[in-house]
Amino acid sequence: MTRTIKLAVIPGDGIGPEVIAEANRVLDAVLAGGDVVLDRTEFSLGAERYLATGETLPEAEQAAIAEHDAILFGAIGGVPGDPRLRDANIERGLLLKLRFDFEHYANLRPCTLFPGVTSTLRDPGHVDFLVVREGTEGPYAGNGGTLRGGTPHEVATEVSVNTAFGVERVVRYAFETAAARPRQKLTWVHKTNVLVHAGAIWQRVVQAVAAEYPQIEVDYMHVDAATIFMVQDPSRFDVIVTDNLFGDILTDLAGAIGGGIGLAASGNINPDGTFPSMFEPVHGSAPDIAGQQKADPTAAILSAAIMLDHLGLGAEASRIRDAVRADLATRGSAPRATAQVGDAILAELSRS
Amino acid sequence: MTRTIKLAVIPGDGIGPEVIAEANRVLDAVLAGGDVVLDRTEFSLGAERYLATGETLPEAEQAAIAEHDAILFGAIGGVPGDPRLRDANIERGLLLKLRFDFEHYANLRPCTLFPGVTSTLRDPGHVDFLVVREGTEGPYAGNGGTLRGGTPHEVATEVSVNTAFGVERVVRYAFETAAARPRQKLTWVHKTNVLVHAGAIWQRVVQAVAAEYPQIEVDYMHVDAATIFMVQDPSRFDVIVTDNLFGDILTDLAGAIGGGIGLAASGNINPDGTFPSMFEPVHGSAPDIAGQQKADPTAAILSAAIMLDHLGLGAEASRIRDAVRADLATRGSAPRATAQVGDAILAELSRS
Ligand SMILES: CC(C)[C@H](C(=O)O)[C@@H](O)C(=O)O
Ligand SMILES: CC(C)[C@H](C(=O)O)[C@@H](O)C(=O)O
Repeated sequence: MTRTIKLAVIPGDGIGPEVIAEANRVLDAVLAGGDVVLDRTEFSLGAERYLATGETLPEAEQAAIAEHDAILFGAIGGVPGDPRLRDANIERGLLLKLRFDFEHYANLRPCTLFPGVTSTLRDPGHVDFLVVREGTEGPYAGNGGTLRGGTPHEVATEVSVNTAFGVERVVRYAFETAAARPRQKLTWVHKTNVLVHAGAIWQRVVQAVAAEYPQIEVDYMHVDAATIFMVQDPSRFDVIVTDNLFGDILTDLAGAIGGGIGLAASGNINPDGTFPSMFEPVHGSAPDIAGQQKADPTAAILSAAIMLDHLGLGAEASRIRDAVRADLATRGSAPRATAQVGDAILAELSRS
Repeated sequence: MTRTIKLAVIPGDGIGPEVIAEANRVLDAVLAGGDVVLDRTEFSLGAERYLATGETLPEAEQAAIAEHDAILFGAIGGVPGDPRLRDANIERGLLLKLRFDFEHYANLRPCTLFPGVTSTLRDPGHVDFLVVREGTEGPYAGNGGTLRGGTPHEVATEVSVNTAFGVERVVRYAFETAAARPRQKLTWVHKTNVLVHAGAIWQRVVQAVAAEYPQIEVDYMHVDAATIFMVQDPSRFDVIVTDNLFGDILTDLAGAIGGGIGLAASGNINPDGTFPSMFEPVHGSAPDIAGQQKADPTAAILSAAIMLDHLGLGAEASRIRDAVRADLATRGSAPRATAQVGDAILAELSRS
């Protein structure tokens, strides 16, 4: 019996199409000969599309994407400072809109220092943790405004909106995730001493849910202290759960210590299955190196592995990760073209 | 002619009194025999005071502190989770209240990797930058609230308030600071692609002020990317200006890569001189090691040096920094008691 998975592919801008091409090759290879078929639809969205048509995410396209089983996303964004993009906000209007409208409330960002990969840390120790970043509220809610804009009396606000509903569902997901891992440890990160209202709702929810998971060791850290531990003793972390903005910051830092943002994968998960989940490298569109085969597609390939996990294809996901691990162990530091990295990972796959 | 400087000292909680004792010894030594006299008043404020009297910062004491020329601040905060402190918020009611009421809008946090100090980074390169953190608004404004608290329908908000007035004064200060340094470079950090309203006011102000400093190279980074550069290539930074929350996070990270938070000094500056500025180590009260002579007083001593700079005593400030530098160069990694570090720095001072 063939299982057909409807996959929406959004390669995006800059290096997005290059890295997604490699992820697609790896997906095809790992599924070849099996009973799973990918039925892909490509959506051309991002800064280039906006520049060409003025459109960011037309309703009909969003509806079409919603009909898929999963979304593979490259990276979006034009050249910084491009005046033609001044009034666009591709990030808010496309990437964040998908995360919010599709209820991607659990943004999974694993951080593993694979053998053979050099960390920016002198003595990284054991680095293998997972950040569960809230994806649908907090400071990303988009509730803000400007009064007397452009004048010396301008006041601009940003409202972080935190709901018991929104915090509880991601905290619960994080506890479930921690319970399925050997270390049974969850660190929640906030800034409760300053952001007292948002901090209080997080604290109350974490305490309430923790009572249902007595076996899990629960630790709290202020976000500033968390950055210190991340570079001084990352082995302290197993699962981290935090809000949208703190998660954004901590996962870029995690990417850097885990061998670089070229290896950092993510999944924007809708655990309820009401909308397709979306899988994307943490890195951006890097227009400065686009089209030159300079980008590392590993993050996109590892994101495809997270996607397979999510789709219940854990064995295939593991094969991809093992192939990446094998390639990284022998990769060295000589620069390789984007497709060469894809080739190498495909070669490892064919050996397994 | 003797110049008397009225110094308010707030040793605070935990390791605060221990590190401030050493800073005071070093101040006395560097000023001995000169024509500057410190007239100290100690204010017993913090979690201990709150537990003893229920008071956080009585109005009369705040008024008395305001009459001083400068404030030397240790660290505040009780044992995390102490139920008697549940309804206290010493950070907001004391530390942030002083920063806000005394208009400490330029929070200076230098990050220098001194010779002989081991960084957590494998290859730190040249680390010598200064973060100018906004200190009186942004997400720290304390404008937030809770609706339906404690229920499944709770909504908690935090409002980041950003004014042209507030942003411009700190941005202007940062440009002045960058203009006085050899590299002539300023990096401003925000998250303009998500926090579009706050981001826009920062962008407009930076652009406007930059026009007055054509010699300064201006760079922009999203806060998440800034954490990556900070651990991968900190030599990229000279002066950084950023908002209150991003500054909080980035300076703890900077402390970690600059040899540890035990060396990170700061000044909460009111550049207009309308209220006393306040000098404090970036670290917290660390109640777990309090009273055991385990804390490193170097950050407090370097904060005292920033204070002397601010008071126009640059030569004395340099002597302290040179003594610290000399001690660090030979310090090694064997643990030393708090007072032993003070002794060693005093010995270097007496040699100079
Ligand atoms: C592009 C941007 C909106 C996005 C975010 O802030 O979430 C990115 O930094 C990320 O981490 O996926
Ligand atoms: C104690 C806390 C309120 C404070 C802050 O967040 O500013 C501290 O972390 C700091 O950096 O000085």
